[in-house]
Amino acid sequence: MNFQQKLDAIITNNNSLLCIGLDPVLEKIPEHLRNEEFSLFQFNKAIIDATHDVVCGYKPNSAFYEAYGAKGVEQLKMTCDYLNETYPEIPIILDAKRADIGSTNEGYAKFAFNYLNVDGITLQCYFGGESLRPFIEYEDKASIVMCKNSNPDSGEFQDLMIDGQPLYKVVAENFTRKWNYNRNIMLVVGATHPAELADVRNIVGDMTLLVPGVGAQGGDIEKTVKAGINSRHAGIIISSSRTIIYAGSGEDFAVKAKQEAVLLKDEINTYRF
Amino acid sequence: MNFQQKLDAIITNNNSLLCIGLDPVLEKIPEHLRNEEFSLFQFNKAIIDATHDVVCGYKPNSAFYEAYGAKGVEQLKMTCDYLNETYPEIPIILDAKRADIGSTNEGYAKFAFNYLNVDGITLQCYFGGESLRPFIEYEDKASIVMCKNSNPDSGEFQDLMIDGQPLYKVVAENFTRKWNYNRNIMLVVGATHPAELADVRNIVGDMTLLVPGVGAQGGDIEKTVKAGINSRHAGIIISSSRTIIYAGSGEDFAVKAKQEAVLLKDEINTYRF
Repeated sequence: MNFQQKLDAIITNNNSLLCIGLDPVLEKIPEHLRNEEFSLFQFNKAIIDATHDVVCGYKPNSAFYEAYGAKGVEQLKMTCDYLNETYPEIPIILDAKRADIGSTNEGYAKFAFNYLNVDGITLQCYFGGESLRPFIEYEDKASIVMCKNSNPDSGEFQDLMIDGQPLYKVVAENFTRKWNYNRNIMLVVGATHPAELADVRNIVGDMTLLVPGVGAQGGDIEKTVKAGINSRHAGIIISSSRTIIYAGSGEDFAVKAKQEAVLLKDEINTYRF
Repeated sequence: MNFQQKLDAIITNNNSLLCIGLDPVLEKIPEHLRNEEFSLFQFNKAIIDATHDVVCGYKPNSAFYEAYGAKGVEQLKMTCDYLNETYPEIPIILDAKRADIGSTNEGYAKFAFNYLNVDGITLQCYFGGESLRPFIEYEDKASIVMCKNSNPDSGEFQDLMIDGQPLYKVVAENFTRKWNYNRNIMLVVGATHPAELADVRNIVGDMTLLVPGVGAQGGDIEKTVKAGINSRHAGIIISSSRTIIYAGSGEDFAVKAKQEAVLLKDEINTYRF
């Protein structure tokens, strides 16, 4: 089963376009977990067990684990292993925003697809699509490329005009027409830019888009869903992290996270059809 | 002492603009090391001990360690610790090509500057300079931003024309004029593009440039040095990995690496003055 098939199945079964970002920070997780040997993993496990039936995916961001060195990377692996063993129906996206020249990318692809065994990885576009072949060649895995990012200042280069259209649209076009030969390319477009999300949707057809930036970053749900939805009332993975995983700070944090996730999932569905 | 001061001192003391890329691959390192518990580290240590007096820096690329998961990251740390303890005068550049939105970059900055304690890190530009503040704010550390990469197809986006000039020049201009407020920005320009290297030199003044792509990738030394050198007969860190670290495959691999490094260092110096 490839990424898209796995995603389609879970969207149907959980009736959800919501992906939870697993981005633990030691100072922010509940106090009773901080002294555990694998506190980041314990935190993630509780969030996962509470929310697995209301999401369409989980997205751990590598930076939050690397901050703790090899011990952090080990807990990223424990998280992915736990997901693959316990909830194998749920896609895992490694948010790593990697890219290098082609031969070097083989190392990153091994990290994501062999060591962690995730279903997709986020990638930088600046080196060009040719350099991303070591990722794209994993046909069943998603190569999810930065297009228009959620940070307020992403326009510095992404909005520069090239023959009358902004760079992010050229990126969307090239990754749709030139590099999607394995039908496993997806693009990242931030929820903080709904007009640009609509522009990208027009370029990419029904391609799935990963849309971060709702919640703490301020993206509007209604605008995001209406701008991003494809002809099958899906095609967007809406990712939220802080608003959900830190909804509570006590021993009931996972219950609070679930409540917040259900609210967000339901709000998204309000505008889907 | 900040990155530039450390670099200036070692360039003078070792009379070298050569940086060695520490990019070990288990299948390529000498057979007698492959069964060691920390074989990647043992390989690096031997290369470092043999070459420390002919280089201006070492550049481990994170992908080569991540390919082996947490155990690989541990050996990346062992390599950086060994360098910092034994040869503290030599700058370490973590070649990681990282970038995310601002708050997430704090995790990557901690990985590089606190956990590994390297002197500089390579970064992606696509999110814009604002998002890179968590790196740039480490004033004594170098933030080394992708500008014009060495891969043959880097032009797909990097050469797109914006108001009559290619994107990579806009990147060079913005990171020189707007984001170099701590005087710790450097740029990456591949040796495979000497004309573009000369263009970037014209934009950035005496800024130090990291120049990969000689050796296995085919960059010409004479053209690279003549195009890249600054007014102080320095300002380029020429990085080579495979040609040097795999010069030999027997028990004398470190001696062979040293010979190759001396040849390259001397060839670079031929064209420096």
